Amino acid sequence: MIIVMRPKTPPEEITKMKQKILDLGCEVHESLGVNYHILGLIGNTSSIDPDTLHANDYVEKVIHVQEPFKKVNRLFHPEDTVISVGDRKIGGDTFAVIAGPCSVESETQIVGIAEAVKKSGAAFLRGGAFKPRSSPYSFQGLREDGLELLKIARTKTGLPIVSELMSTEYLERFVEDVDIIQIGARNMQNFELLKEVGKIQKPVILKRGLSSTIEELLLAAEYILAHGNENVIFCERGIRTFENYTRNTLDLTAVPVIKKLSHLPVIVDPSHAAGLWWLVEPMAKAAMVVGADGVMIEVHNDPANAKCDGQQSIKPEKFQALMDSLRQLAVIQNKII
Amino acid sequence: MIIVMRPKTPPEEITKMKQKILDLGCEVHESLGVNYHILGLIGNTSSIDPDTLHANDYVEKVIHVQEPFKKVNRLFHPEDTVISVGDRKIGGDTFAVIAGPCSVESETQIVGIAEAVKKSGAAFLRGGAFKPRSSPYSFQGLREDGLELLKIARTKTGLPIVSELMSTEYLERFVEDVDIIQIGARNMQNFELLKEVGKIQKPVILKRGLSSTIEELLLAAEYILAHGNENVIFCERGIRTFENYTRNTLDLTAVPVIKKLSHLPVIVDPSHAAGLWWLVEPMAKAAMVVGADGVMIEVHNDPANAKCDGQQSIKPEKFQALMDSLRQLAVIQNKII
Amino acid sequence: MIIVMRPKTPPEEITKMKQKILDLGCEVHESLGVNYHILGLIGNTSSIDPDTLHANDYVEKVIHVQEPFKKVNRLFHPEDTVISVGDRKIGGDTFAVIAGPCSVESETQIVGIAEAVKKSGAAFLRGGAFKPRSSPYSFQGLREDGLELLKIARTKTGLPIVSELMSTEYLERFVEDVDIIQIGARNMQNFELLKEVGKIQKPVILKRGLSSTIEELLLAAEYILAHGNENVIFCERGIRTFENYTRNTLDLTAVPVIKKLSHLPVIVDPSHAAGLWWLVEPMAKAAMVVGADGVMIEVHNDPANAKCDGQQSIKPEKFQALMDSLRQLAVIQNKII
Amino acid sequence: MIIVMRPKTPPEEITKMKQKILDLGCEVHESLGVNYHILGLIGNTSSIDPDTLHANDYVEKVIHVQEPFKKVNRLFHPEDTVISVGDRKIGGDTFAVIAGPCSVESETQIVGIAEAVKKSGAAFLRGGAFKPRSSPYSFQGLREDGLELLKIARTKTGLPIVSELMSTEYLERFVEDVDIIQIGARNMQNFELLKEVGKIQKPVILKRGLSSTIEELLLAAEYILAHGNENVIFCERGIRTFENYTRNTLDLTAVPVIKKLSHLPVIVDPSHAAGLWWLVEPMAKAAMVVGADGVMIEVHNDPANAKCDGQQSIKPEKFQALMDSLRQLAVIQNKII
Repeated sequence: MIIVMRPKTPPEEITKMKQKILDLGCEVHESLGVNYHILGLIGNTSSIDPDTLHANDYVEKVIHVQEPFKKVNRLFHPEDTVISVGDRKIGGDTFAVIAGPCSVESETQIVGIAEAVKKSGAAFLRGGAFKPRSSPYSFQGLREDGLELLKIARTKTGLPIVSELMSTEYLERFVEDVDIIQIGARNMQNFELLKEVGKIQKPVILKRGLSSTIEELLLAAEYILAHGNENVIFCERGIRTFENYTRNTLDLTAVPVIKKLSHLPVIVDPSHAAGLWWLVEPMAKAAMVVGADGVMIEVHNDPANAKCDGQQSIKPEKFQALMDSLRQLAVIQNKII
Repeated sequence: MIIVMRPKTPPEEITKMKQKILDLGCEVHESLGVNYHILGLIGNTSSIDPDTLHANDYVEKVIHVQEPFKKVNRLFHPEDTVISVGDRKIGGDTFAVIAGPCSVESETQIVGIAEAVKKSGAAFLRGGAFKPRSSPYSFQGLREDGLELLKIARTKTGLPIVSELMSTEYLERFVEDVDIIQIGARNMQNFELLKEVGKIQKPVILKRGLSSTIEELLLAAEYILAHGNENVIFCERGIRTFENYTRNTLDLTAVPVIKKLSHLPVIVDPSHAAGLWWLVEPMAKAAMVVGADGVMIEVHNDPANAKCDGQQSIKPEKFQALMDSLRQLAVIQNKII
Repeated sequence: MIIVMRPKTPPEEITKMKQKILDLGCEVHESLGVNYHILGLIGNTSSIDPDTLHANDYVEKVIHVQEPFKKVNRLFHPEDTVISVGDRKIGGDTFAVIAGPCSVESETQIVGIAEAVKKSGAAFLRGGAFKPRSSPYSFQGLREDGLELLKIARTKTGLPIVSELMSTEYLERFVEDVDIIQIGARNMQNFELLKEVGKIQKPVILKRGLSSTIEELLLAAEYILAHGNENVIFCERGIRTFENYTRNTLDLTAVPVIKKLSHLPVIVDPSHAAGLWWLVEPMAKAAMVVGADGVMIEVHNDPANAKCDGQQSIKPEKFQALMDSLRQLAVIQNKII
Repeated sequence: MIIVMRPKTPPEEITKMKQKILDLGCEVHESLGVNYHILGLIGNTSSIDPDTLHANDYVEKVIHVQEPFKKVNRLFHPEDTVISVGDRKIGGDTFAVIAGPCSVESETQIVGIAEAVKKSGAAFLRGGAFKPRSSPYSFQGLREDGLELLKIARTKTGLPIVSELMSTEYLERFVEDVDIIQIGARNMQNFELLKEVGKIQKPVILKRGLSSTIEELLLAAEYILAHGNENVIFCERGIRTFENYTRNTLDLTAVPVIKKLSHLPVIVDPSHAAGLWWLVEPMAKAAMVVGADGVMIEVHNDPANAKCDGQQSIKPEKFQALMDSLRQLAVIQNKII
């Protein structure tokens, strides 16, 4: 960490700040520029809050050098983490395809879609039971009944199931029922929820918040790892920008960036990012070639009558075509799909 | 709601869509443009999900006409809502000043600050007991002990207390202990939490999410009102933009906009928005003149040693000067402070 | 175009507005909702400024139905435009690779790089002669001398040259000297410049502005086409967002979106978007699979001593590897590279 | 400037980098952290391009310490700059009100509005002759004829005139005809234009680009000052964000920030920022209390028939009321209006 003192800071204030750094358990390294006086902190700075130092009136800026995350940091864990879910894997050589409807609507619907996506080669079934919706008047999901239907679909197809957890209240139920717990974009910084999923061993898909930087996403995962659960999969799903033709702006560059900064797997959700079904295929292909470890695709047998997100869901035939494209690319990318 | 069909949509698809609208309980109003065929939905469209209609391949776009929020909508509730907290009010002619430290650190600290801000004219004491922090290694608040210390400060000063609730787990405790429950920016779309605070009658300050549109903020409040609690106060606290000199970009224009769209009170938090103590005073004054119903100000007796957000906290003397400025403006704005 | 009148608009104001629409040469289509009164404009609305209608106090909102651009619109020109530059093409089955240094520095440098990228398979040479730089103290390019050096490189390699025009003052010179004129992101809405390049027949690469919506980009191209030049190639080069790990956020979804809305070719500049050399290869590959018609890549023989943008330039060997990757993908994408 | 070398950089690469710094004319200050090796550059770093250093593969990041702007920097010019236009001033104790229509439409219109705003107390007349419009089919201004009409309005009222220059082609004409040259948001980084207005002595209002950081705005002004013209007035006019209720998001916090960083005056344009006439008054008042040196207000006698921006223009009576409000606030703010 580096502290830049304001021009013309009185020497006694420099001395005080140096003492404060020593009190924080770090060594001080001093450097005098033409206008600025710079103090470097040498030592373990990860638990020092830069805002506290910045509160000093004579401090111009405080600059991070060391990344603020540790357990998710590739620097201290160079090899890729591969997460196992039964006999399937996420990370490493595998390209994991998770597919299914935005929300579970009925047994026929979820079982039908599960069978279709399995046939096309999906490795996991997704389906929302508890749905975060902007409006209280929109369909909120079948909740516990939805979980029951997902379990039926799993029994019939053997596909492990992924579903979103929105509250610690249902954590135990999810640990019991689902194979991968999803934390949605809106809850990426629901720290109480992160701490609790940190105490279990179930794999967690952590979706990037709409306005979260990559660093904040890594820090959110750090909450989970710091509490004991190392099975975290990142999911890029679009960020909020001024462009409004698409629902969000898919930040595909985040994939190679996260893979450089962290050892954890990264998947991409092109359906939510784009918000339009005809954009799902090109963006899923792009996810593959930028190095993602998988994709999460919304598939619905009857999008025009889906209870949510129909406009971004693709039909099973379209999903089959998408899988064919992905398989072609997988050969080039040396990925097993 | 208006549906624009794609150019060259086959007539039978138009017929199908018209039937679908009738099935949704609305009348259809048809209009033929040069290239586009337009269908208007007449009736109660508030429970119709536009995404469902958009899922039809022949639909070019779906346009809202009616605002999607109802109970918070000024259209159906023209007069201002004034919220009572004991003998104090938020909304109407009152300009409510809420002041206190980012986090409660000790009895001496919170009581000292409470006495200081009371003396300068603050009407409410704020203090964080449970703290949402980006890093798991930052100070997380004194939690339940913090609530106890806030209660001591209330007893000593008579100031009602405001504190942030981060999880439904502590809801009962907060209903018991605090006077106004704050829902933080990161939890603005934690819908499970919103539903629960909707079931109580305690006033709620709902902070705008970092990347939330004004419409989403109103819909988040709609969750609370729809579940039965009409005591909601909006708080503008900055949105995330590309500008990084300041912590966030304070969207002051949102104040008159929200007051036009909704009958609920709106306050402003300049401390979190700007993230720099020397910006707090001008932005608090601006909040007053754009018509806000109050401000929330971080005050700390020793910012350079504060456990969080020291760089954006002002000292009690500075707070006194700020109150003096606000009082001058209150005369012009016809507000009681 | 659709006009939504405010709730409770007096009938005489509706009548006035209807007359105004007739005066604008359109027919009116009227529709009465529960709270809102809606007026549809039937006819040629492309020259009607929605802001003018919005200025009426009784107007709640004005909604576009028809896209505001015409000549660039695929609706009126369904087949892809293919642009010829000598014997080379941009658009259609071709994937055009444009490569070269950020700025021309010397004859040895530009000729050396030109030979290297030609050997690897680039179809065009790029090189900045006039450089737009945030700071007046940064290197501003060799200007006219840079153009001379580019011409030498063209003579030696046969590669057509692409260079950025920043002012109408040099237009004649550029028409004479370069094969494709580039309009940079910062000048995307320099309308005087757009009008002038609209009067020539030289192909123009139009880069998306940092904060321009896709619609604004298409409208900027509309300026060029409306003045007579139909040889426009769009270039997605990243938009400005809150994420600051990368220089900008590459909006790859914009590629299939633009190709749906317009018949003109679209290329991608991953170098400027990412701003980091190790991100260029994955993002260039992604550009190919989302359907771009080409890429523009910064290549420098000695990035660490480049006069600008060294951190985002790749070395010739790395460029060779990138071309190999692109060729593999081209087979799958049915593109000629 | 501080260079952070990647963990495990070979010692010989550190040595090379140190030599490079010496070659750039700076001293090196070395500091060894736990994982990172840090090199500080001591000396005049303003002409060193950080990107060049970043291009070295072993460099993790390059951090500015010194602000990259010099002539606009308050550090080297502590007292406020006051700009004179005839007998009027912008900056210091004065609060300058510039008012007038978006575009000049006719002699009656511009003279009528000029007389009205003068009567209410405006100090300058604004009026667009050359208009930057997103669509080529929108009204582009009366151009040279517009300048003639502005001059008639000046003769009749004595108000100095402000108008936007879009191209160097008309620079001489503007120097002759107008009192303050406006550079619009879209041309903030039209560096060729900035250099040219840097060669004259006429005051320049430089509007912040829609996606420009404060630092970029200051650097754009630095172009003008570096070429010899020190009469620059900044204008905050809203930045582009995800919020789309308003045209842009007015960043009022930028006002005290710019005034801290620079000695030049800062005005605010609430009309373009908000894009809705009923937001102009509250935001203009807020501009005053955050310390702006003036405002620029769109006033039109008949907004519903204005040729541009009618929805954000206020009528003369409304402008009178706004001036009354500003005068009340001026007393508190110690400003002369």
